[in-house]
Amino acid sequence: MTEKSIDVIGVGNAIVDVIATVDDEFIEANDLVKGAMTLIDDDRAHELYAAMPPAMEVSGGSAANTIAGVASFGASGSYIGKVRDDQLGEVFAHDIASIGVGYAAPAATEGPATARCLIQVTPDAERTMNTYLGVSAFLEPDDVDADLVASAKLVYCEGYLWDMESAKAAIRKAMDAGRDAGATVGLTLSDGFCVDRHRAEWLDLLDDKVDLVFGNEDEVCSLFETDDLDVALTKVADLCETAAITLGAQGSLILRGGERLEIAAVDPGQVVDTTGAGDLYASGVLVGLARGLDLAECGRLGSVAAAEVISHVGARPLVDLRTL
Amino acid sequence: MTEKSIDVIGVGNAIVDVIATVDDEFIEANDLVKGAMTLIDDDRAHELYAAMPPAMEVSGGSAANTIAGVASFGASGSYIGKVRDDQLGEVFAHDIASIGVGYAAPAATEGPATARCLIQVTPDAERTMNTYLGVSAFLEPDDVDADLVASAKLVYCEGYLWDMESAKAAIRKAMDAGRDAGATVGLTLSDGFCVDRHRAEWLDLLDDKVDLVFGNEDEVCSLFETDDLDVALTKVADLCETAAITLGAQGSLILRGGERLEIAAVDPGQVVDTTGAGDLYASGVLVGLARGLDLAECGRLGSVAAAEVISHVGARPLVDLRTL
Repeated sequence: MTEKSIDVIGVGNAIVDVIATVDDEFIEANDLVKGAMTLIDDDRAHELYAAMPPAMEVSGGSAANTIAGVASFGASGSYIGKVRDDQLGEVFAHDIASIGVGYAAPAATEGPATARCLIQVTPDAERTMNTYLGVSAFLEPDDVDADLVASAKLVYCEGYLWDMESAKAAIRKAMDAGRDAGATVGLTLSDGFCVDRHRAEWLDLLDDKVDLVFGNEDEVCSLFETDDLDVALTKVADLCETAAITLGAQGSLILRGGERLEIAAVDPGQVVDTTGAGDLYASGVLVGLARGLDLAECGRLGSVAAAEVISHVGARPLVDLRTL
Repeated sequence: MTEKSIDVIGVGNAIVDVIATVDDEFIEANDLVKGAMTLIDDDRAHELYAAMPPAMEVSGGSAANTIAGVASFGASGSYIGKVRDDQLGEVFAHDIASIGVGYAAPAATEGPATARCLIQVTPDAERTMNTYLGVSAFLEPDDVDADLVASAKLVYCEGYLWDMESAKAAIRKAMDAGRDAGATVGLTLSDGFCVDRHRAEWLDLLDDKVDLVFGNEDEVCSLFETDDLDVALTKVADLCETAAITLGAQGSLILRGGERLEIAAVDPGQVVDTTGAGDLYASGVLVGLARGLDLAECGRLGSVAAAEVISHVGARPLVDLRTL
């Protein structure tokens, strides 16, 4: 077994967030699906952007946010995701590398632009995401360095990436490389609509290749087509060794070996923008697992990281999570 | 005289700010001139960016910030400045147009990239700016629509733009077009080093073409090569019809016709990032003048706008200034 020089390696869509504050009328007027992640094409991205108020651009991407959280906890992280050789690609690569995350993937020299996610934050702190995937969806198996993946204790893959055949093959390659090297393999369900699109494939994937699944109440219920959270929890616990299910302000549940652990939320003081809450929760749990902490402690780190990120605009921590 | 359909038109460097929070050690380690604006070339921009922590990208540019403030007060603004047809150029154009500022200048299809300013914010809320001017410095007289300028009550030009011969000619064209149409012509001194580079030319410019000059204590003292603010104030009052001199937390002074009006600062609650303080002060004064308010009221609007912008990261207002 390869020596484990990396705590967590993430695989996902490399995205720059374009964040604006809007009111609920904007959501309605622009036919947005509040609280969800909707995929949009280039034309729609330009149309929606034109309608948006002034925005700020900050690096995002679900798994990338998680790995940023891992690094912020002082653990070692690495990231696999695709950008173009354009200005937003430079921003993404800079921001993730500057916090010490290994990100050496060369930017694509052709194809669509770097992905961007047009995020509308409403006064209730809810975020509505509209993603132009651009070149990020063109991740291929060749972009996944199996030796690098094998050097990680945990491999964390993002459900959002599961759309193109080549990206699915890239995820499978990363999961197999991790598994063969004795790593724990994780998947986040990402979004209710995502689950709906990929239910059958994901049930197989969770059964075959995934040790650790992340999701929220809506996603895990959608996975098993039930409205009953208890039913969904029983089924997910049967399918995966470990499941971490977030419940918003109610905290989270971690399920393993017949046990169901209740994890309290941490009071964020103020809730400004819930973007990245699930991503940062995952970072805490992953860091805890990499350090061999017990599950209650893993969950607590998740709650701490999630509380920090929802207290401000943007999906990555603004303070060193170690200090919390 | 042309009908005045615009309150204020601004002419300046069209810049996207790249803002990071750093400590004072970073300033020293990277040989930065704390509190100043330093011009840097593309190589240095890449080198400094590589050293910077994660950043956010938001539209900036001194005169553009001022015009954003003008629009935020509910007055009509227009802006002249040059971007490239790249992603940061799109960000700049989007952000300024989305607040209702007239900005129809086509992006340059060749030449250097859109300008960016690498801003380091230290814990004392001071900002240290390092600007890669890119295509913004290539503003030419042809980019200045004399009819558009003639339709404004006030023409506001940025000293930062005064570097390339073509940009100087563009400023002179804008000033002349405004003056011929009976507009009030304003100039901001922008930065102490700027004043130092252009002292002789600016003294002529202030004498010939400028009705209204903005600057801080350092800049106006530098202009007349004196350490004595009183001496500088007397001289600037002789040279220009109106002078508005900011004094940081001490507020500002407005000088006109032998009078010297003291304007109190407005308490911002918290001071997070002083970027844009002078730009937003100018927006308040300009809006007041456009509305025919008395000078004390103009100054108060300036103090209100400056207080808002220093209470958060970024150089443009986050709330509707009308509501304040």
